Order: sequence, then C-alpha cells, then structure tokens
Amino acid sequence: LLEQCGKKGIPRVVIESGGFGEFSSEGRSLGERLSEIAGRYNMRFIGPNCIGIMNSSTGLCTPFSPLLRPYRSGSVGIIAQSGGVALSLLFMCESEALGYSKFATIGNKIDIDENDILEYYIEDPDTKVVAMYLESIPDGRRLTSIAKRSPKPIVVHKANIGSLSSAAAQSHTQALANNDAVVEAALRQAGMVRFRDMLAYMDFVKILQLPRMKGRNLAIVSRSGGHAVMAADAAFMYGFNLTPFPADFLEEIRKHLRADVIKLSNPLDLGDLFDFNVYVTIIERTIQQDNVDGVLFMHTYNPGFEGVASTKLLQSVADICKQYGKPIAVCVSTEQTEITKLHTEFEFPTFVSPERAVYALAESIEYYERREFMAQHTEIPDPSPALDSVRIQGIINESKQQGRSPLLNEALDIVRHLGIQTAAHCVIERADQVVDQLHGLSGPYALKIISEAISHKSDVGGVVLGLSDANAVKEAFSNMIADLEKQGSSDTYMGLIQQMVKRKHSTYELIIGGKRDPQFGPVILVGYGGVFVEAIGKPSLRLAPVPLAEIDEMIDELPASEIFKGVRGLPPIDRDALKDGILRIGHLMTEFPEIDQIDVNPILVSSEGVIAVDARIFLAQQ
Amino acid sequence: LLEQCGKKGIPRVVIESGGFGEFSSEGRSLGERLSEIAGRYNMRFIGPNCIGIMNSSTGLCTPFSPLLRPYRSGSVGIIAQSGGVALSLLFMCESEALGYSKFATIGNKIDIDENDILEYYIEDPDTKVVAMYLESIPDGRRLTSIAKRSPKPIVVHKANIGSLSSAAAQSHTQALANNDAVVEAALRQAGMVRFRDMLAYMDFVKILQLPRMKGRNLAIVSRSGGHAVMAADAAFMYGFNLTPFPADFLEEIRKHLRADVIKLSNPLDLGDLFDFNVYVTIIERTIQQDNVDGVLFMHTYNPGFEGVASTKLLQSVADICKQYGKPIAVCVSTEQTEITKLHTEFEFPTFVSPERAVYALAESIEYYERREFMAQHTEIPDPSPALDSVRIQGIINESKQQGRSPLLNEALDIVRHLGIQTAAHCVIERADQVVDQLHGLSGPYALKIISEAISHKSDVGGVVLGLSDANAVKEAFSNMIADLEKQGSSDTYMGLIQQMVKRKHSTYELIIGGKRDPQFGPVILVGYGGVFVEAIGKPSLRLAPVPLAEIDEMIDELPASEIFKGVRGLPPIDRDALKDGILRIGHLMTEFPEIDQIDVNPILVSSEGVIAVDARIFLAQQ
Repeated sequence: LLEQCGKKGIPRVVIESGGFGEFSSEGRSLGERLSEIAGRYNMRFIGPNCIGIMNSSTGLCTPFSPLLRPYRSGSVGIIAQSGGVALSLLFMCESEALGYSKFATIGNKIDIDENDILEYYIEDPDTKVVAMYLESIPDGRRLTSIAKRSPKPIVVHKANIGSLSSAAAQSHTQALANNDAVVEAALRQAGMVRFRDMLAYMDFVKILQLPRMKGRNLAIVSRSGGHAVMAADAAFMYGFNLTPFPADFLEEIRKHLRADVIKLSNPLDLGDLFDFNVYVTIIERTIQQDNVDGVLFMHTYNPGFEGVASTKLLQSVADICKQYGKPIAVCVSTEQTEITKLHTEFEFPTFVSPERAVYALAESIEYYERREFMAQHTEIPDPSPALDSVRIQGIINESKQQGRSPLLNEALDIVRHLGIQTAAHCVIERADQVVDQLHGLSGPYALKIISEAISHKSDVGGVVLGLSDANAVKEAFSNMIADLEKQGSSDTYMGLIQQMVKRKHSTYELIIGGKRDPQFGPVILVGYGGVFVEAIGKPSLRLAPVPLAEIDEMIDELPASEIFKGVRGLPPIDRDALKDGILRIGHLMTEFPEIDQIDVNPILVSSEGVIAVDARIFLAQQ
Repeated sequence: LLEQCGKKGIPRVVIESGGFGEFSSEGRSLGERLSEIAGRYNMRFIGPNCIGIMNSSTGLCTPFSPLLRPYRSGSVGIIAQSGGVALSLLFMCESEALGYSKFATIGNKIDIDENDILEYYIEDPDTKVVAMYLESIPDGRRLTSIAKRSPKPIVVHKANIGSLSSAAAQSHTQALANNDAVVEAALRQAGMVRFRDMLAYMDFVKILQLPRMKGRNLAIVSRSGGHAVMAADAAFMYGFNLTPFPADFLEEIRKHLRADVIKLSNPLDLGDLFDFNVYVTIIERTIQQDNVDGVLFMHTYNPGFEGVASTKLLQSVADICKQYGKPIAVCVSTEQTEITKLHTEFEFPTFVSPERAVYALAESIEYYERREFMAQHTEIPDPSPALDSVRIQGIINESKQQGRSPLLNEALDIVRHLGIQTAAHCVIERADQVVDQLHGLSGPYALKIISEAISHKSDVGGVVLGLSDANAVKEAFSNMIADLEKQGSSDTYMGLIQQMVKRKHSTYELIIGGKRDPQFGPVILVGYGGVFVEAIGKPSLRLAPVPLAEIDEMIDELPASEIFKGVRGLPPIDRDALKDGILRIGHLMTEFPEIDQIDVNPILVSSEGVIAVDARIFLAQQ
C-alpha cells in the first residue's frame, strides 16, 4: 500500500495498522521496509500502530475508532504514543469543557516522532498548551532543546518507568525504557512539566487556561465555611499569602448578609449570603484589589434548583477573570450530573476540590517562574583556569591504546588536570619502594590497590586507612598483595599511597559524577557520598552543559542541603569550589566523548574547599 | 426555644442556628446557656451552627439546606463539623453511586461530638465505613481509643492545620487548632486513615466497598495498551507483583482476537478484542487464578454507541467481583456525561485513572495490614529493671516545692533513675571545688552551666567542650561565671562537669522526648539530634504508652533509618537499648503527670548502647 501511495505521489501517510516491531521480528522488518519505501518516494508518515491524527480547524479526522461527534475545538495540542490514552485526554478535555487544537497519535513513531509534532505545535497558532503522553524518548537531546525554546507550556506524562511496564511498553509501541531519573531531571531542566497522575496533569492543563498569577497573594471566597478552612489549609501548604481585605469592603458585604452571624475575613465565608448578584460584585471588588494576585472561588450548590442561577453566576465570574487578567480558580461542589450539565454551556475550567485548585495554582506559578529563571540564567562559563585538555587527552589515549579504562591513579590525575584538587598521593609498584616514595607526603596514610580488574577496591581488601608511617604502609602493601594472590589472582598490582585528608565536623562527603545517557547525552550529578549516600536520598542530575545558576539549584535540591549553608554554629561550605567542581565535570563530559562515566566519590567538601579522594572513570566501549 | 423543648419533655434536639461561640463572646455565653438548660432537662443536642442530621433508613432529614431528593442509601456514615463539607461528601458519594447510611453535622459540638457519633456508627448495622471531616479534635484520647477498637474503617479529613486557617476555623465552628504532627501520628496509631486531599479520600472510601485484597499479586486487564503501561507503572510504584498468566489461558484468549497482532501478558492489552462477552469470560478466568489477589480492569470506551454494552459488561464484572470475593478495581475512561449515565444504574465504584485505582488498592492493603499489626502487637512491657519511681518523685517534689522545674543535674538524675545510662558527671558550686570533684571522671571533660533561668545554655556561653584536665575546667568555670555576671546576671550558678563520651563514625546523635499534648495527652518522640536535626527531618511521634512493636516502627520511620541497621561496613546500633530508652520515657510520661515535657538531647546511640548527654525537663504549670 505504501509503495502504491508513493507511486501516486502522495507525500503524507498515516499508518494505523499494528503488528510491526512491537509484535515480532518479522514486524520489525516490515517497519524497516516502511522507512525504506518512504525514503525512496520522499514521503513522511505517522505510525504505524496508532489511530492517526485530527485537526480541529480543518476537520481532518483519521482515527479508526468511531467517535460520537466532532470534538470541541480549543487550544490543547495532544501528542500521544497511545491511541487509547490520546482518546482519554480528548474525553477529559471534553468533560472539562476544554477544546483541542490538534491531535496526533504516533505509535511506533518510525518516521514522524514527538519532536516533529512538537515543533509543529509550537508554530501552530491554534495551540496554546501541548499535552504529551510518551512511552519512550529516543532522542532526549532534541526533545529538550525544542522544549527549551518553546514559548508554550508542555505538559508530559512519560510512562514506562518501572520494571513491570517495560515489556508491556515494548509490545505496545515498541518503546524502550529510559533512565527515569535522567528523564525527570532533563524535562524539568528544559522547562517542561511532568506529571505521573492524569488528574494532576489535567488540573495543570486547566489552570493554564487562566491568566497567569503574578504573585502569591490569594483571596479565597467561599459559599461554605468548611471549604474556606480546607482552602486556607491548602494555601498554607503551597506557600500562598492570604492578604486581609480592607475593612470598608467587609462592611459593605455585611450589609447583604441575612443573619450577620459570620465573621468576615480572608478566607471569606459567605455562608450567610444568598443573593448570587452580590457574589459577582464581591468577586469583582476582590480582584480589583492591588494586593490580590488571584482568587479561589468555591461554589457549593444544590443540584437542580440552584443550577441555572449558578451557571449564570459562574459565567459572570469567568468574565471578570478575563476582564481583569488575574486568575480565578473556580471550585464547584455539587453532584456530578449538575457539573456535567454546567459544562455543556460553560467553557471555563473548574476544579473538584480546593486542594486541587490551590495545587494547580501553585504548579502554574512554579512553571512560569521556572521559565523566567531559565531565560535569565543561560550563562555557562568556561572554567578558569581552564582544564588541562592536553594531559587529559594523553591519559585517555594511553588507556585506549591498552584497551582499558584509566586506572585509579590515572583517574585521579584526570580529576587533577580538570582543575579539582585531589588528595596528595604517590604510586608504588613494589613494597620496597615505599620509603623513597613517601617523600613529601605526611601521615596518616591511606593505601589503595591499583588494578585494571578491580573496580570495587574495598570489597577485596584493597583499601587500608589510617596507616601512621612508612613501615605500616610497607607492611600493609605486602599483606594486601599476598591476600590478593591467595584469592587466586595473577594480575600485577600497584599501590596508591594517599595522604589522608583531615576532616572536621563540617566536612561533608559528596559524590560528583558524570555519565553518558544513550538518549539524553552527557549528564552530571552531585549527591551524598559516604554513609548517608543511599540513606539521605537521590543525587541531583542535569544534562551537561549546565548554567551556573542551575548548578546552585542542583546543590539546593539535595535533601538536608541547609547544612551546606552552615547550621548550629558550623561554617558554610565553600560553595564556589563545589560549583566549580561540578562545572568542570560537566566540561569533561562534553569535551571528551570517549568518557562514558566518571565518579568522583568521595569528594570532601568543607569551608576550605573541595578535595577529591577517590575517582573511577570508564571509557565508552570501542 | 431549648427551655420550651425541655419543658415539653423533648429529649433530643438539633440546633442549626449560628452566632454562638464561633461568632462573638456574647455567642459564647449563649452556648453556655444551651449546655446549662440541656443539663437541667437531661436533654442531648447536636450543634449549634450545623445543618443537623439525616438517617437514610428512617428518612429523618433536618438540614435547612433544601435537597433535590432523598439521597441513595448505603453504607457510608458521614460525620462532619461543617454542613457544606458534609453536603460535598454526600454529593461525591451520590456521583460515585455510593449511598450513605447516616449523616451528622456537628458544628460547634457543644454537647454531642464526633466521639459520640463515632461510637454510635460503630454499633450501627447500616454503616460499614465512617467518613469524617473535623476542624478540631478536643478529646483526642477518647477519639483514638474508640477508633482503636473499631472494626470499621474510619477515614478522616482533619482540616485547620496551618496558620492561615486557624482564625477561619475558629469563626467557622469555634474550632481550636491541634498540633498537627501529634494528630497525624495519633490517628495512624489508632488505625484511622487520614487524607489531606478529598479525591484521595473518596478513592479510599470507594475501594473499601470492594472485597479485601489479600496479597500483592495483581492482574491488569485493559482495553487500551497505553492504559496497561500506565497501570503497570503504578503497580511498580506501589509495590504490586504482576504474576504471569498461564500459557493455555493466553492461547484461549488469542482465539478471540481479530488481527492477532498484540502480544498477551500481564498487563493484558486487549486492544484487539471487541467482543464484550469474551471480556467477561477473561475477567472471570483471571480472578479464578490462585495467584491473583485482585484485578484492575481498565475499560476505555466511546461515549454513546458503546454505552449500553459497557454498562452490561461492567455489571457482569461487578457480579464476578462479589462472587469471588476478590477486588476488581474498575477504571473507566470515557466522557463524563457517559460516566454520569453509567452511575445512575451501576452501583459499583469506578476510578478515573489507573494511577488512582492502584493507589487506592495499595492504601487499602496498608490499612488492613495496619489493623492486623495493631491486633497482633499490643504488648506494652514494663521496663526491667523498673524505673526508680521513688527517687524520680523525690526530685520532682523538691523542684515543685521550690516552684521551678528540675535543674540540668536533676534532669540527668531523673534520666538515670529512669534506667537510661547518662554520661558520668559531678556538680560543683565554686571553681575551687574542681579538683576534689573530678575524682573518678576521666577527660576530656565538658563543662555546662546549671541555672534555673537558663534553658538554652549554648546561647549564653554556658557550655565548654573538650577540656583536657582539672585546671582547664577550673579556669573555664571561672570565666563562664565572670561572663555571665558581666551580662548582668545575679543568679547563683553551679557547674556540671561531664566526662565526654567517645564517639565513633557509627555513633548517632538522637533525641528522645516526651510531652503532654492538651488534647491527646502524653506523647513520645524520637528523632535526629545534632547537625542533621532540622535537616534530615521530623521526629516520629506516638501517644504513650506504646507497644514495643510500634517503637520499632518509630525508629524505622526516621528518614535514612537504614543506617541504624549497619551500612557500608559500619555496625548496627544497639536497637534494644534505644527501644528500651524510648519505652522508659513513655513510662515516665504516663506515670508522672507533673512532667509537661522532657527532651533527652542528645542521646548518643551506637553499637554499644545509648548514653544520654543532656536533658531538659519542664514541669506542668501549677
């Protein structure tokens, strides 16, 4: 069929059929034939294994899945690797009275992929928000570079993240798993917003329909006191301020109360006010106040007899929101039948609970602030003094020639040539070299085995700490070699004698690392080393190169990072030295593609700078 | 009116009017009059400031708020301090096709409170699940003791938790704030389940309608491959297993596929199967398998033309769920109009996304396991050897007589009489006593000021560490006194000379504490002391007394608690000694009501036991 399309001169094709690479190896060959034919005729195609595309402005609609009617057109651009999930997104938009602009399911994305569609949506005047569902990200570098320059919010659900889904995803859309920690860091770094829960995802899409909230001053107006309390709890949890309302404004409201037995403040409990027209006035007066950046309006109403009046009230609220360019997050509590009825004519987002609405407001503020931060902090300085690239290349070349990765001493040398201080060391080949070689180092000493074969030195007794003098080192080295030979090894070993670094209570063991991700390229990380390494939590990751301000973010993201600022009388760390070290590892990863991974672990960080104590480097498989 | 009711012999009253203690001090007096009149006539009343009660089995319905129709009766018992929130709960139940059994709004709860209603619901045969919304918990001891013996799940939204809501809650239902960390710990300890988000709350109420899931083997059946992938992600995140389906079962399914281009496994992607009757068979065969504890069925369908057939399919699924006594969490993805239509006739809970359904399943498993854990671990041993109550009471009495709390040395003595090892110390009154008094202690020494007025010793230079010998101690004490006198103090001071405890890399600084909560009574806590105290996170709390197994939980709950088990070659802590210390602090708090607060901080915990190094004790105001 594709061959025939080519002959007819058809330039664009949607292939919905399944049974390609996601199903079998024969299917994979079929997929390769698609590429070959399309290449020959200069055709572009979407799919296979999808339900195709829809365009709300032209009416083009290819899904084989029958649809009840044309869906509401609007500003949400949908990109999904799964037809089923794309339909869910469409149904959710419809249920929330949001329209879609374009709809693309890309399945196995053999030719056109999410990056192509994303570039198109960014240009598309109908699309204001991009909603993505992906099961694989084969070219993360391109995705993040497109996203970084997108003026439109990109909301992502990246699935296929655990061991239980990888087989399913592969047989669903031929999707290979990514390293999810890298995905998480990279999407955020590129200014995308990721959710793992479709409700949070939709709440965010909804809040983006409203004007931006420019500060954190929130006004809460509620028909129910209990909802006012819940909303104030949520405002507290997400860091909003509830600025007091002016006294004359509250006096004005009091005139309309029936029993006048409710105290008025922010949050405003209007349980005693039953005239919906007065609500409109109050909300307009509220939003006019300079120290109100946004309003949360909670409308609890009885299904049936309050329905018509409520729709009218909410429409006025929506108009006020547009008129004043500040967000009004509307939270509706009534029966679902009534909400469904409301949405048939009311094209304005609503939330189901105060917590969800306040959460969405907070997420939107964070999104806009993040994009501003990105725009303001693009500086990626060259380390000064520069790294000694010639020497680093020399060590790499020598290792490559010998078909191995750099040895411990070479790895530490590379770190030093990078411009990061390392603990002073010397190398011995035999125990009787010890006396000569200690020249210049002062005790206590650490002795570490240097071996091509041993990656985890401690596990085989290849590290001895706290040796007080040359004799102790000599003896330890002899024993170490004898032990290793007893374990049946016939390698030749060398020993690294290292001057032990004096630690204080405010010396922290960290790790700085770099690795090359198959889909996202060079990645750098900083985290805790030592005893708390697994315990305190995950390292911070970024794609390299990283602007200096984001290196600050990386450090701040670490759990318990307040300690680095100095707590309880302890001095702060030398933050500049740490940032410089991270920067240099980033440069190493971007400048030397031969390096697959580097771990500087531990690197001791204190008020007096950083000192690398151990390092491993792996070269890429050749 | 209440007086008239009393004269007429009316024994039970609902007072919906507002304007009492929540509004003004005159209102507060009015509230007191209510109590007085009710007491005189032996009446019980609900309210004031509420919308009263409903009983779905008798039809009793007092809310002034007009309702569209009688609401579906069912098994959810609602208790809410707010009428508005109670209606929201009712609406949410209705929208989800769940019915209510009883409905009680309690407002200012001057007479009948949540505890009275809860006791009633526990006895009520119509109520299977209790759904609570509270803005204050004035008698936490009673609440937790009722909850502990409840055979029915109790789901709680406790609002009024941040500084922004306390004024609103007070003027809403006269609710005073609780210490939320205590609430959080106490509710869990009592086997209640707390949510801060109404959606998670409702999802949990829904999952409780299904049979209990007895293990973590989950089968996922999905009409859409994308939803299958998302569900498998959620299963991974929440710790479920996806057990493989038998080969002959999958072969049987294949016969019904149309194109046969989708690989079959668990999760089961049935995107290629269009006969709903076969779905029923597949789900029944699935649930019959011994290694399947529960099923997640994701039904994505087109609104309109698949509606009728879907309702029939889902009804069959619900019947299978009941027949086999295993949960089938049904996740429906279609337009909201269609879901609303479905729920008018389909009385079975559904979820809106696979993540929410799997989350609810996980929460329910945790709930049932928690209740089993509580039932199995009730042992609260007496510390052995026993605490020296006579000596402790002696110190307390002496302090009380002098109108003060115990001094530093007395606090450490109490800790020692409790049976917790303390660092060896002696007390001096003048610098020239130093030489005599060091008898028996070995250096280095710590010198700490003993003063009635000084609570934070370090802040005023009242602690000097690392003093090597008696002369250094003597000099330090003279200087310390001189400095304090320079600061204008004319108190009389004493000095505590303490032998400093040798620390290893695996010695951890913790805090063990006790305090008396105004609503929940004696509370104990364990947490990190030292530099990581604020950084690593919150202490674990429990109401005292605590079963031994829950003391284990307290330790495990601490962030990074894996380190206590020994990591990276470091030895594990002496866990029994730590548990014993916590147990003893609990006993102190329950046995000595005079003690308002005790902080043993730091207490050094290592493989060789625990040693208390500092302690503060405050007596209750007399």
